[in-house]
Amino acid sequence: MKLQRFLTSCAAVLALVTVLPAVSHAQTKLRIQSTFPAKGTFADGGRLWAERVNALSGGRLVVEMLAPGSVVPAFESLDAVNKKVLDGAHSAPAYWVGKNRAATLFGPTPGGPFGMDEIDYMGWIYEAGGLDLYREFYQTELKMNVVAFPMTAVGHQAMGWFKTPVKNWADLKGRKCRQTGITAEVFSKSGMVTVNMPGGEILAALERGVINCAEWVGAADDSIVGFDTVLKHFYPQSVHEPATVVEVIINGDVWKSLAPDLQAIIQSASIEATMRSMNQRNRNDAIALSEMAKKGVTVHRTPDDILKKLLESWDTISKEESAKNPFFKKVLDSQRNWASQVVTARRATTPAYSSSANYYWPEKK
Amino acid sequence: MKLQRFLTSCAAVLALVTVLPAVSHAQTKLRIQSTFPAKGTFADGGRLWAERVNALSGGRLVVEMLAPGSVVPAFESLDAVNKKVLDGAHSAPAYWVGKNRAATLFGPTPGGPFGMDEIDYMGWIYEAGGLDLYREFYQTELKMNVVAFPMTAVGHQAMGWFKTPVKNWADLKGRKCRQTGITAEVFSKSGMVTVNMPGGEILAALERGVINCAEWVGAADDSIVGFDTVLKHFYPQSVHEPATVVEVIINGDVWKSLAPDLQAIIQSASIEATMRSMNQRNRNDAIALSEMAKKGVTVHRTPDDILKKLLESWDTISKEESAKNPFFKKVLDSQRNWASQVVTARRATTPAYSSSANYYWPEKK
Repeated sequence: MKLQRFLTSCAAVLALVTVLPAVSHAQTKLRIQSTFPAKGTFADGGRLWAERVNALSGGRLVVEMLAPGSVVPAFESLDAVNKKVLDGAHSAPAYWVGKNRAATLFGPTPGGPFGMDEIDYMGWIYEAGGLDLYREFYQTELKMNVVAFPMTAVGHQAMGWFKTPVKNWADLKGRKCRQTGITAEVFSKSGMVTVNMPGGEILAALERGVINCAEWVGAADDSIVGFDTVLKHFYPQSVHEPATVVEVIINGDVWKSLAPDLQAIIQSASIEATMRSMNQRNRNDAIALSEMAKKGVTVHRTPDDILKKLLESWDTISKEESAKNPFFKKVLDSQRNWASQVVTARRATTPAYSSSANYYWPEKK
Repeated sequence: MKLQRFLTSCAAVLALVTVLPAVSHAQTKLRIQSTFPAKGTFADGGRLWAERVNALSGGRLVVEMLAPGSVVPAFESLDAVNKKVLDGAHSAPAYWVGKNRAATLFGPTPGGPFGMDEIDYMGWIYEAGGLDLYREFYQTELKMNVVAFPMTAVGHQAMGWFKTPVKNWADLKGRKCRQTGITAEVFSKSGMVTVNMPGGEILAALERGVINCAEWVGAADDSIVGFDTVLKHFYPQSVHEPATVVEVIINGDVWKSLAPDLQAIIQSASIEATMRSMNQRNRNDAIALSEMAKKGVTVHRTPDDILKKLLESWDTISKEESAKNPFFKKVLDSQRNWASQVVTARRATTPAYSSSANYYWPEKK
């Protein structure tokens, strides 16, 4: 058989191959370590993301979501991804506040900031240069070889759970609460004593009386942890973390090795998981709220002065930090600029959410 | 050369092929006709969706977005997709109200309905069985061989543009406004005279005095059409279409011919385009609002009684329709059930959007 004839015959076989579904391709596996409890909004979002990456790639890109701590402790996952000990992590920017306080601007800050909700925050990421700043933060500021994606939005985090009712900002003084990162600093301006501890230790600390209040996520996630068994006064409304978005970080070399379509798939799946997990969480919160009464929990409206003082407290901290940290200032200025456009436009164009809600679902007096 | 040797040699070539990027695959082209003007939120969303489908599939699935009317008139696009004259259309459920009034429940209805915003509406679609009902509507109720995806959300549509200020609901009486579908019926209960016409004819009708008010989309889209050159009183806030989502519809046989990963890509791209177009529109509205004053346009706050009367008017219509149309009732009941959970939970857990917005961006008195 001559070469030409061989190639012609082969071409026929190749023609068949080109119409085979994508699943016939080589499979790439991404080992991503989660840093979140197996039950709850964050883990659900991570699972949804992994499922979509698998489906969108026709099985060519498979995410293996590893349990928290299975390779490295949660707070070491950024370094592990940088060193390619892990391909990636489902983590939270707030974990890296100790490395550079600008980290908090990519996760939870009071007021969103500047009045942004989680939708506006995602807008800043994708329409206003936020994603570039987020990548610059890891790659230039922290010198980490990682590529980050915002994922799993958790808007409207709850103010927290308390042993006794909270009358106002001054009434937070002396209470001993589990709080983390910048949020701890914001609340501590009230005179609250803040204690940081991993999520898994909160319940035991409450039961032993080491703390008498706690903040975690919201109605559904907090009920899974079991706060409602010890603390009977719940304050769902807050402005301390209205636009929390956690993240998937992927090692830079692993990222570069992926074909452009697989890179696009990782991005789209992260947006889909963010959108859908918001709705799933809203439903889960609704179910959890409906069960509060029979657990003896009183759901309170958060006093207005606490909402205002949280913003004032944060403004003091962010002003001090901006003066010291040029990158922090750069990011904050970018967020202020986007918020000055979209937050004012949404306020001008959208009637209050409560206006139709109260018409259809009158509040019990 | 023996067969075995040929196959072995070929196998080596095949092994190489299996690690080639997905772009080497056969290309499928989808001819999708748009029904929207080339400039504006809807067309921008459609282009974004097409771009993402292309990127996510590595060029294996290419969307050719055809200009409105290039194959069939807009209102015939559903039939054309059913008959496979087109592979699909970027259209709006509101167009099909004449076939079955339940169509309005998959697009714009007053109150969302039941207080849902566009996020809650997307939640109903993906977390509460809405997508199944949407497909059932086309396939069983209308007997159309199409598969539908909600895409390009346009929350908070503007109440409209007027020649003279509007004091209240009663003051709408006698005004001649361009309105479409169920929205026209809702507004006409005020005594407003409603006239339906395609988007492209509105400006000329205003200039000739055939109508003296109009509703289209919102600040940015309406300014593109040129309403602000004729009408100088703009009312951005409304509840008549707070959760408008338009759609991509695809012929059922074309849909079935696509591999599962390409089907997944169409879904994810539609969610990504929906999310991102919301943010792009919020920014465009902000820019348009900032230019109103120099165009001599006064931006008014919509009177509260109009917001309430719009909901009451819709409730009368939807109650009458539910009594006549079992499918309409089935969809409305499903939406009420989802809203009873998520709308009440969001109201309970989220401070008013204006609370942080007013703190950071005080309104001018």
